[in-house]
Amino acid sequence: MSSNCRSGIMVSIFFVFYLTYLFLGALIFSSIERPEEIRLKDELRLLKTNFLNRSCVNSSSLEKFLEQVLTANKYGVSILKNASVNTNWDFASSLFFASTLITTVGYGHTTPLSDGGKAFSIVFALLGVPFTMLVLTASVQRLMHLFTYWPMGVCQLKAGWSSRTASKVQFVLLLGVVVVCFFVVPATIFSAIEQTWTFLDSFYFCFISLCTIGLGDYVPGEQSGQTLRPLYKITVMVYLFVGLMAMLLVLRSFHKAADLHGLTSLFHLPKCEEEEEDQEPIIDSLESSELDREALPHKQLTADPQTSYNSINR
Amino acid sequence: MSSNCRSGIMVSIFFVFYLTYLFLGALIFSSIERPEEIRLKDELRLLKTNFLNRSCVNSSSLEKFLEQVLTANKYGVSILKNASVNTNWDFASSLFFASTLITTVGYGHTTPLSDGGKAFSIVFALLGVPFTMLVLTASVQRLMHLFTYWPMGVCQLKAGWSSRTASKVQFVLLLGVVVVCFFVVPATIFSAIEQTWTFLDSFYFCFISLCTIGLGDYVPGEQSGQTLRPLYKITVMVYLFVGLMAMLLVLRSFHKAADLHGLTSLFHLPKCEEEEEDQEPIIDSLESSELDREALPHKQLTADPQTSYNSINR
Repeated sequence: MSSNCRSGIMVSIFFVFYLTYLFLGALIFSSIERPEEIRLKDELRLLKTNFLNRSCVNSSSLEKFLEQVLTANKYGVSILKNASVNTNWDFASSLFFASTLITTVGYGHTTPLSDGGKAFSIVFALLGVPFTMLVLTASVQRLMHLFTYWPMGVCQLKAGWSSRTASKVQFVLLLGVVVVCFFVVPATIFSAIEQTWTFLDSFYFCFISLCTIGLGDYVPGEQSGQTLRPLYKITVMVYLFVGLMAMLLVLRSFHKAADLHGLTSLFHLPKCEEEEEDQEPIIDSLESSELDREALPHKQLTADPQTSYNSINR
Repeated sequence: MSSNCRSGIMVSIFFVFYLTYLFLGALIFSSIERPEEIRLKDELRLLKTNFLNRSCVNSSSLEKFLEQVLTANKYGVSILKNASVNTNWDFASSLFFASTLITTVGYGHTTPLSDGGKAFSIVFALLGVPFTMLVLTASVQRLMHLFTYWPMGVCQLKAGWSSRTASKVQFVLLLGVVVVCFFVVPATIFSAIEQTWTFLDSFYFCFISLCTIGLGDYVPGEQSGQTLRPLYKITVMVYLFVGLMAMLLVLRSFHKAADLHGLTSLFHLPKCEEEEEDQEPIIDSLESSELDREALPHKQLTADPQTSYNSINR
């Protein structure tokens, strides 16, 4: 019960920290973005005045015109000549939209216009989101052997490291590889393909996408005059899926490392469970984990250290 | 090894189904939305022509004007008189933005304008997204006792149901309560508050938000003339957090039920682990789960049925 109480206090402290974090973030966003917003608003006001002065349009008819333009734009339909050659609902774009829906990225650069489209979005995501989670989890579960358990086992056997050290090193290496392969390299490619994107813009796009936030301020393949647009859209879709798998792999490796360091039991969180048959090698779980033993009495004692070596030489 | 092979085939079949699902979805979206898009585009073209005919503006200067209007609109800055009273970066709106960022909902109705804002978004989400996952998981882990293990235990003890039946009934009941409390009731409220939203729009908003898709075509508190806008924004934020907790609870209850029905071991997926100390009552786990025993030999055998009853009478 005392460990229960301790974890309750930890969670309360975390909750207070969390709220503070959120409030501080809001303050910083407000202070960074407010001046930019005011500047842009002033610019727009000047633009409108100048436009009205140069032309014989009256203010209210311009207002009504712009209102309709912006409403259409909200649904991804642009009044501009350049943009109007692109359609949002050809097969490749629809596929891209469907994939952002079920991966919960949801850029919202195009959104369903009709009631039928909205209702279908609900049904499609209702099945598709759990389906995606299942496919991603099942794939990552298999990748864990190659990218987490195997390197950890090698470190433990060859270098004689403890499972904690091995998990730390493995996690840092995996994180490095994922950052390079799924953030730095794609960001470089996007900033080369998309003419108006800087490297920061592209990196920001990769990050916002692979965290499934998907703000939609930057979406590839939306500029006019891009060749092979359908192929480009589908490539980005594949990048999203593989990238999400990599993110999930990093998350589960972190979870594994947190388990070994006794962090999950400290907060009474679910543990990162490994498969029963291909038990990964945790050689010194009985020696070095004093913290674990305190919190998880029978789990540690029932683990059979003999089976640990089996999976490596297969 | 044969169970490993079987699960490999299952995953491959699922993968093919998944791709088919995605392609079919794209086809349906394309067929529903394409005509709507063409209609809206025609309307806009007519609007532009009419506007040009009635005024003495030339086509290229209007084009340039509209380009700037739409760029500003992309960042959430509207040229319309009505909308310009609302700021996107006051404290309440920034708080709302920050919360949509770290919960990965990411409507994108407002997005950072400056490079500083983009860089800060990356840093803020990098810490905030895992932080949110931690807080939500820790909270839901505690709610599981009240909403999953306790009702299951009651069903098993009082009605004498098997753990499988109890988990099914508990899941259906929980799902019903969540749908009413977090979808139907909020959708009714939103459709009353937001003048232009139908019930379908509001329901679609609730669904797209609580799946963390967050397309951003419908965002509460963005219309002009709404009173108590900051309070409204913060209420919506609280709704999002509590709703996400409820969704996670449903997901974990489903996971628990899937475990008991041997579905997770069939696909070699991680199981929904319960806490070590407050073991929940799974009375007949040793009797009815033939499938489980095959796949998970020692897990089932080391479970101590004696401890199962303890947690109920506390």
